[in-house]
Amino acid sequence: MTQLASATAGTITAEMEEAARHEGVAPETVRERIAAGHAVLPANRRRTGRRNILIGKGFSVKVNANLGTSRDYADVERERKKMKAAEEAGADAVMDLSTGGDIRAIRRDLIAGTYLTFGTVPIYECGILAERETGSILGMSADDMFEAVKNHIEDGVDFLTIHAGVTRDVVATLDADTRVCDIVSRGGAFLAEWTSHHGKENPFYARFDDLLDLCREDDVTISLGDGLRPGALADALDAAQVHELMVLSVLARRAREAGVQVMIEGPGHVPLHQVRAQVEMEKELCGGAPFYVLGPLVTDIAPGYDHIVSAIGGALAAWAGADFLCYVTPSEHLSLPDEQHVREGVIASRIAAHASDIARGLPGAFERDRDFSVMRRARDWPGMLKNALDPEAARLIRQKGMPSDEETCSMCGPFCPFKLKDGVTEQGT
Amino acid sequence: MTQLASATAGTITAEMEEAARHEGVAPETVRERIAAGHAVLPANRRRTGRRNILIGKGFSVKVNANLGTSRDYADVERERKKMKAAEEAGADAVMDLSTGGDIRAIRRDLIAGTYLTFGTVPIYECGILAERETGSILGMSADDMFEAVKNHIEDGVDFLTIHAGVTRDVVATLDADTRVCDIVSRGGAFLAEWTSHHGKENPFYARFDDLLDLCREDDVTISLGDGLRPGALADALDAAQVHELMVLSVLARRAREAGVQVMIEGPGHVPLHQVRAQVEMEKELCGGAPFYVLGPLVTDIAPGYDHIVSAIGGALAAWAGADFLCYVTPSEHLSLPDEQHVREGVIASRIAAHASDIARGLPGAFERDRDFSVMRRARDWPGMLKNALDPEAARLIRQKGMPSDEETCSMCGPFCPFKLKDGVTEQGT
Repeated sequence: MTQLASATAGTITAEMEEAARHEGVAPETVRERIAAGHAVLPANRRRTGRRNILIGKGFSVKVNANLGTSRDYADVERERKKMKAAEEAGADAVMDLSTGGDIRAIRRDLIAGTYLTFGTVPIYECGILAERETGSILGMSADDMFEAVKNHIEDGVDFLTIHAGVTRDVVATLDADTRVCDIVSRGGAFLAEWTSHHGKENPFYARFDDLLDLCREDDVTISLGDGLRPGALADALDAAQVHELMVLSVLARRAREAGVQVMIEGPGHVPLHQVRAQVEMEKELCGGAPFYVLGPLVTDIAPGYDHIVSAIGGALAAWAGADFLCYVTPSEHLSLPDEQHVREGVIASRIAAHASDIARGLPGAFERDRDFSVMRRARDWPGMLKNALDPEAARLIRQKGMPSDEETCSMCGPFCPFKLKDGVTEQGT
Repeated sequence: MTQLASATAGTITAEMEEAARHEGVAPETVRERIAAGHAVLPANRRRTGRRNILIGKGFSVKVNANLGTSRDYADVERERKKMKAAEEAGADAVMDLSTGGDIRAIRRDLIAGTYLTFGTVPIYECGILAERETGSILGMSADDMFEAVKNHIEDGVDFLTIHAGVTRDVVATLDADTRVCDIVSRGGAFLAEWTSHHGKENPFYARFDDLLDLCREDDVTISLGDGLRPGALADALDAAQVHELMVLSVLARRAREAGVQVMIEGPGHVPLHQVRAQVEMEKELCGGAPFYVLGPLVTDIAPGYDHIVSAIGGALAAWAGADFLCYVTPSEHLSLPDEQHVREGVIASRIAAHASDIARGLPGAFERDRDFSVMRRARDWPGMLKNALDPEAARLIRQKGMPSDEETCSMCGPFCPFKLKDGVTEQGT
């Protein structure tokens, strides 16, 4: 039985109990939300050593860090370090998006080395193996795609991105559209090109029941990819994007009915004033399925700072109801991220997640800030440096600019408003 | 005549014409908005060489960078470098908040070295000189405060932060409140302590007409400081904050009636879901006066990343109508910022400003992103690296992770969705 099937049957699993403890909610609440399809607990039965997390309504907003080699940087050791950085920075999940080197070996290596919930995109490996064998990603067959899914499940992956909404009809909507950036999702591009070239339907759509059977067996959560997500502000909320989401909404229902946990992926590049609409549309169309967004990026023009750009969009999206933020790093649109960029990306997303947890009224979120500000008021530097979101970063900046009076900081020094209020600087220093 | 008096009289000044050109609007529109008190053009008549900017309704959102020495770091050369960094990163204004060294000499040095609109907080210098002479900031007299204002005006400062709303009544509201962080504004703390200690009213409030006379003479814009702004999420929208804003709203009307340009300063630490209310309250209470916010910071717990925290709040605030964003740097709450932190702070605020310009429908803002994304689609790297918000930062990241195929980036390499769509990688690489 999957977590969803158990929840529907009224059973609270050990994984639900563990995750409920982390969230500080009653296990029964967890069961209800999973049963309703409003939350998922991605937990491949073949895998052990995972910290079980909940993604969805009423739970804290979670953060995913994308890892993985590329053809230019195919070093597994580098990816191990990036994964470690993601763990240390407080990510809740990682995805291995490797496209270079021995992809399966890298995946197995990474998954064995972490307690984080683990996701992948099987179509990448499938297309790349086809490219190596036949000279083109178009050389893959429908069976190859399902074979890739089987391998990923066998390796213990907890959730799979499947671009089942890139159907021929949806691609036709795209072609009729006047998009600035066409398709920016690699999985989406692979499948759109494949369906066009072969004149066949997207196998993940045509054989969606087969996919459900595979995922149900080991309780692998499906993350329905938005292959046609907008990659430019100009493309947000266009017909192609909405058409794909409508297809995903039907597939999400079918997944839930089959007892397979499912979430929906979302954009992408979206102007500030359209972020809420994106989230509300997904929640309404998809029966409240958890929403997993990449960004959203609220401007196209700031490569080098896209972690900040997507922290803005992510905070707004999560406040509006998005449940799971895929980080974006400073190197997005420019290069494969390194360890430091992974760290910065995770922290930026965690800031967005926490700010929205407060706005959504998550129990305990506001209290954390209040307690922190009590320490600030008391000039309790050890307390602040211990409880900051990233203690090490705060410590480094303070150390680099130490004040002569250690009770203050080097900006205000003797004119610290708190010291003034406490009457401790009236005599001057 | 001040810009406001000219605008009211139907006259378009040379400064209005210049600023209108930069904004790409008709000079008559500028005149109307200044006359209505919905925009300011801070322009001390004693100063030359300034690039004139507009702050207010319908204009692009502007960014201020705070500079200035502290007692621990009183090196003017360091501040010059920080000012240069702010200029290069695209700030619209700087404020000199120096509290260390020869404050007047530093101010004159900085103001002579920049074309940016220039602001200060005279009460700092006044309190610090008193502390040096008498051993306590409380040693300043009401006349000293006005003397400081005169000196700043004489030195060519374009806008002055004046905490005239820290009245005895307002401070009484604060004392009755159960705030976590009391007063976090230094100017606010100076004046609150002064009024309590001396049992006298805030001179800037009691003698507000004298202040208006001084500012009118050289057309110095008053930025009414929020001395009681919330310094913790827990303190946002409390009685003390609202009471002060109500006082400021009356003073703003008096300033406008006297022909003195005025804007209102705002928070501070505000949870995501209260940002819009903060802006709408200010606009409604203060007759649409330009709103100048510090942040807002949407969480208290992320020292080291407060530029990101306030980019989130700043984007939301500006979208809701705030006109002027005071940057916050990564070193906020930790130390005096250095050059690199100034740069990061300005860029983060500019991202917030631009994202909100798009959301507010500012002509040309969305088009900039569309044009950029057209370059991205065309894999026009020189175009992107030239037109990015921070070209140098983008170039560095790309160079550090160069792809083997220069048409792509090292993340996707041969599997670039755009190349795929263009059919140029079907044969593999």
